[in-house]
Amino acid sequence: MVDFSDIQKPTLLLHPGRVRENIRMMASRARAQGKRFRPHFKTHQSAEIGEWFREEGITSITVSSVDMAIYFADHGWGDITLAFPVNLRQVDELQELAARIKLGLLVESAEVVRSLGARLTHGVNIWLKVDTGLHRAGLPWDQTSAFLPILAGLEHHPFLNVAGLLTHAGHSYHADSPDEIIHIYNESVKRMNILRQSLASSGWRGLEISIGDTPGCSLVADFGEVDEIRPGNFVFYDAQQLSAGVCRVEQVAAAMACPVVAVHPERSEIVVYGGAIHLSKDWIEVNGERRFGLVALCHSTDGWNAPISGAYVSALSQEHGIVHMPEQYLAEIQPGDLMCIIPPHICLAAQAMGFYRTIHGRRIEMMKS
Amino acid sequence: MVDFSDIQKPTLLLHPGRVRENIRMMASRARAQGKRFRPHFKTHQSAEIGEWFREEGITSITVSSVDMAIYFADHGWGDITLAFPVNLRQVDELQELAARIKLGLLVESAEVVRSLGARLTHGVNIWLKVDTGLHRAGLPWDQTSAFLPILAGLEHHPFLNVAGLLTHAGHSYHADSPDEIIHIYNESVKRMNILRQSLASSGWRGLEISIGDTPGCSLVADFGEVDEIRPGNFVFYDAQQLSAGVCRVEQVAAAMACPVVAVHPERSEIVVYGGAIHLSKDWIEVNGERRFGLVALCHSTDGWNAPISGAYVSALSQEHGIVHMPEQYLAEIQPGDLMCIIPPHICLAAQAMGFYRTIHGRRIEMMKS
Repeated sequence: MVDFSDIQKPTLLLHPGRVRENIRMMASRARAQGKRFRPHFKTHQSAEIGEWFREEGITSITVSSVDMAIYFADHGWGDITLAFPVNLRQVDELQELAARIKLGLLVESAEVVRSLGARLTHGVNIWLKVDTGLHRAGLPWDQTSAFLPILAGLEHHPFLNVAGLLTHAGHSYHADSPDEIIHIYNESVKRMNILRQSLASSGWRGLEISIGDTPGCSLVADFGEVDEIRPGNFVFYDAQQLSAGVCRVEQVAAAMACPVVAVHPERSEIVVYGGAIHLSKDWIEVNGERRFGLVALCHSTDGWNAPISGAYVSALSQEHGIVHMPEQYLAEIQPGDLMCIIPPHICLAAQAMGFYRTIHGRRIEMMKS
Repeated sequence: MVDFSDIQKPTLLLHPGRVRENIRMMASRARAQGKRFRPHFKTHQSAEIGEWFREEGITSITVSSVDMAIYFADHGWGDITLAFPVNLRQVDELQELAARIKLGLLVESAEVVRSLGARLTHGVNIWLKVDTGLHRAGLPWDQTSAFLPILAGLEHHPFLNVAGLLTHAGHSYHADSPDEIIHIYNESVKRMNILRQSLASSGWRGLEISIGDTPGCSLVADFGEVDEIRPGNFVFYDAQQLSAGVCRVEQVAAAMACPVVAVHPERSEIVVYGGAIHLSKDWIEVNGERRFGLVALCHSTDGWNAPISGAYVSALSQEHGIVHMPEQYLAEIQPGDLMCIIPPHICLAAQAMGFYRTIHGRRIEMMKS
């Protein structure tokens, strides 16, 4: 039996069994297909949860900031890719990291290669960031000529080792269906291989391909012609993944316990203590409406039930969450009760909260930002 | 001359002169009209900035969480209203606070009054939360009968002192023009007075009226028939207030310095280190498009310039910000430069960052959450 009687304020609950099962599942699928699994640790940002990955044989990881790389290096991780374009204002810290771990960096311009090459005196692995359709960062996959000056520039710098091509097909997060997600994944793999082929024809052989987004990696049966995968969100999943059909309800491993502070039956709403500073202001879109979370009742052994059909967080301010609740539940709910809210985007909610509480009441620390 | 050469990662800059001027302006306007000024400290959450208010003669404040009340009580504030519906799971902490400061609490149901009355043994001031149109929390202003059982319930509890009626006319944040904001403010004041009158006819005399939202309090010439005002955001202002015409560019007192990590002239974009975990994922809407921040160049004495016309943050992920930038600026911008981003909603950005740096390089601490 779980005991939430001591929960006083918004608290990010973890179901450790589900977390471990999510890790085990992705790790074994990668292993079965001979792919390097380099999970993105930006989702959980926790040394302890990192150990659960280590128990599944994981030795290489991905992070999204220099601070995160330092934190995990301090916790014994020796092979870290920083999947964010190199920030030239942090080269001193990159230099220190390169001295003690196998560090992978992302570049997308010859200028950055020059600045980096002029300052680093320890070896790093360089990944070229490829845009396969997200249009966030990276060079377009179909412009081979844009990659050539960077590769040529890398040749001048003995400490910059060319590792390969890296993409984040994050447009899968906006796909409308599992089929579309699978299509985006496969299309990205295809585009990466066309680029690899084209660069090989120009003399750049042996480039690895790194790909990785939770929607794609969760849904495809075959990872295809890639060398490594880097999903992160799958460790917990969330309302976005659930509503996109990427995971099942029983795989959602985190929920925000929020105290009820007011009940308004006349407008089918309850007010919870749990706002934008806890859940983040990310959202899912359902029938053209923004929803800031799914809503579940507490469960005596699993922590929380399946989300209530027709219940959702309709608005958030700094500390308040407004929950639309179907009429039949309203009579049962009182101020002082707890509701469990599945955050739209767990990476942002976890970062906002700064620690976890397992459903059994144990605190799990995260990196301090 | 400001010196940003040591800024390595997203950093929330403050212009202390503007902050003090914003405080001075609102404090003197309240004083001139004989209104109690009870500024909302949830925006800055900083004991040091609190002292700047104290220098303007402020002795009463508003907060939005029990933790924030404890933090400011620990920093010498003796008159605090917790402008959030009472969370029954934190009554022990409220009891401790009530023993040492003048504590104001919000209620909106007879059940909560009963639970609170049964447990508190120190006096608190009770404000009835009124919904004048935001529909977030509170009882509808035009249903006098909904307030009567609560007031009657309060009579049974010697430690629950009736203070008055409190509203947050936060729908002003979604208004389309300064005129509409002024209209919402005046309408809310009118509704509060109708309710006060109606409750007086039922025998409940002497209820105070507390109102307060930054848009309304910034724009009205006359605060009207109210006893206290509680704006908070005005201390810094932000992109939402600027684009709503609530403040002038020279009043915006906070901006996020973000390192440029990539420049993509072919799509008129730059990528900055500065994402949803720094700026929050709140937004402003311009021509039906979401924008996650306004964008300015650094300025040698003021910290940042006026926002660049036509430049805005078009997308945010966890650590990345995508900035749309007019063509004429792109040639000048290099990876390693800093851009100054005016956050859409400064309360959320400040909470996310956890500390400030003045444009002169001094660190200002906030409450740790």
